[in-house]
Amino acid sequence: MTRFASTADLRAACLDLPAGHAEAAAEVARREGTLTKPQGSLGRLEEMVAWLALWQGRGTPCLDNVEILVFAGNHGVTAQGVSAYPAEVTAQMVANFATGGAAINQLAQVAGAELRVIALDLDHPTADFTAGPALDENAFLECVSSGYEALSREADLVVLGDMGIGNTTAAAATAAALFGGGAERFTGHGTGIGEEGFQRKRDVIDAALAKHSAILGDPLRVAAALGGRELAAILGGALAARHSRIPVLLDGFVCAAAVAPLVKLRADALDHALAGHRSAEKGHGLLLEELGLPPLLDLGMRLGEGSGAAVALLILRAALACHTGMATFAEARVLGKDA
Amino acid sequence: MTRFASTADLRAACLDLPAGHAEAAAEVARREGTLTKPQGSLGRLEEMVAWLALWQGRGTPCLDNVEILVFAGNHGVTAQGVSAYPAEVTAQMVANFATGGAAINQLAQVAGAELRVIALDLDHPTADFTAGPALDENAFLECVSSGYEALSREADLVVLGDMGIGNTTAAAATAAALFGGGAERFTGHGTGIGEEGFQRKRDVIDAALAKHSAILGDPLRVAAALGGRELAAILGGALAARHSRIPVLLDGFVCAAAVAPLVKLRADALDHALAGHRSAEKGHGLLLEELGLPPLLDLGMRLGEGSGAAVALLILRAALACHTGMATFAEARVLGKDA
Repeated sequence: MTRFASTADLRAACLDLPAGHAEAAAEVARREGTLTKPQGSLGRLEEMVAWLALWQGRGTPCLDNVEILVFAGNHGVTAQGVSAYPAEVTAQMVANFATGGAAINQLAQVAGAELRVIALDLDHPTADFTAGPALDENAFLECVSSGYEALSREADLVVLGDMGIGNTTAAAATAAALFGGGAERFTGHGTGIGEEGFQRKRDVIDAALAKHSAILGDPLRVAAALGGRELAAILGGALAARHSRIPVLLDGFVCAAAVAPLVKLRADALDHALAGHRSAEKGHGLLLEELGLPPLLDLGMRLGEGSGAAVALLILRAALACHTGMATFAEARVLGKDA
Repeated sequence: MTRFASTADLRAACLDLPAGHAEAAAEVARREGTLTKPQGSLGRLEEMVAWLALWQGRGTPCLDNVEILVFAGNHGVTAQGVSAYPAEVTAQMVANFATGGAAINQLAQVAGAELRVIALDLDHPTADFTAGPALDENAFLECVSSGYEALSREADLVVLGDMGIGNTTAAAATAAALFGGGAERFTGHGTGIGEEGFQRKRDVIDAALAKHSAILGDPLRVAAALGGRELAAILGGALAARHSRIPVLLDGFVCAAAVAPLVKLRADALDHALAGHRSAEKGHGLLLEELGLPPLLDLGMRLGEGSGAAVALLILRAALACHTGMATFAEARVLGKDA
């Protein structure tokens, strides 16, 4: 079992990352050029298959064993009235996941993925980060380790998602801490807070940025001070996937903020990840630009739970079906270009 | 059997369109508000389900019986060297569809739809429209009628697609005839023509627009003079779907150009249709703006065959699964907003 004993240990793990399997991606590209369609005419679908191959190390990628990992956590900052929903909803939604009633349950079924929900100490919200760090070093490392361990090393692909009332406040604070611009730049309406609450949310985030100004240059300390349990676990999950060279689909704003410290530590840290979608939450598109991750979908979704990435998984399945099932020009006796 | 006897008959049918079932859409909206997610947080997925209900007339929509109709035709204008591929490829791809080797075969299977391919007199290409109308009135009405008749009246949804070497030239000419801007505005590289051929393609389109300048104010005569057999059939299919109140997913640039005359005749003619995607073909995005159809996907696809719309069908299935399968706040005992 991997347990990061110190932030220095974790930082070392974040800097020591394997590259993909270039020869498998090249094999996909070779076959792609023989299939009965103009070169490149399936656009991003073609790129997605090559990316799958690059990280799976298979010349013919597969999606037999796909896991959706949803991490849930509670946030002390909710006491300041930054969400439209009460904090109890986090646990209630975790129960809803267990009985199959949430959006992600339906999407997991449609997309042929196994859903696993990991609730992180919901009875103990993080500290209010306007007063001090949300998580101390030990609690932060424990959550990162939980996420790191949650990943099945046999997965062909993993979808990462989040649940946590108040967590768009943590995400906006984290994003602003890492990329600048203050609350103004990254704060959105989350689950649907009114205008008064929205102003409060921005003030809370700016107060947190001021409180923690001394550590804003250290990405992992930012994650501990301004994130939350589920964000730390998502960081751990994404890191584990990279060490095992498992491709990742990221969900929305909270996921992007959770993994952003990895990119600050090493620019290519998310080469094994695609952004499933751009959420309607204001900061997400901006953050994806900072991360260099162009989203696959843009459907105005803003639910979290891994929902946008689960929908993107359908696109990946379509892409793979074309690549593996299509006939070649030679097999189908179709004339090629400029014949 | 419906056979449009004259262009006047067809025009009358294009003007006499039923509205949707507002009460079914309202039933969807009522349930949507009770489901365990913030209101509107599934974005366009929620809108898609309401739209399905509006046209199916079912408070609980279904997608049990989905048809993909791909119409294929040949174009006399290919003699002028406007495509990267030889005209024989149209028939060769129709054979590829029949044996299951094309992209659309794989996508139909993934999306759970029945694929039907209707080849329209491939041995007789349309006339070169720089010399005269592509189709005379009788041939045009026959193709529209074929498309009109091809639709199963029991379908829950229909996906419309095209195959025809040279048909982005016809589509660009049609779009420019209806919306102005000349070849400059709507001409793209189609299957991948080189720069010399691209200039030729633009010259051919501008020559056709000059040749047919007298009829540019008449949308159905534009369709006959500058379109092609498969475009006329797609127009007929979309019209039949509206008369039977069957929702439609449109594929790419050629589909959009094929149905554009309907919008010119009546602004709300495509309320029963969604644009499955925005293709990489230059004119498509511009044409969708003219038609008031925001695309669901933007994945750089430019294959035709119904492929982009078939991928969008996956999104529609995801949307419907959420709507029908999710628990309500009351069922799951989850607290609501501002509780």
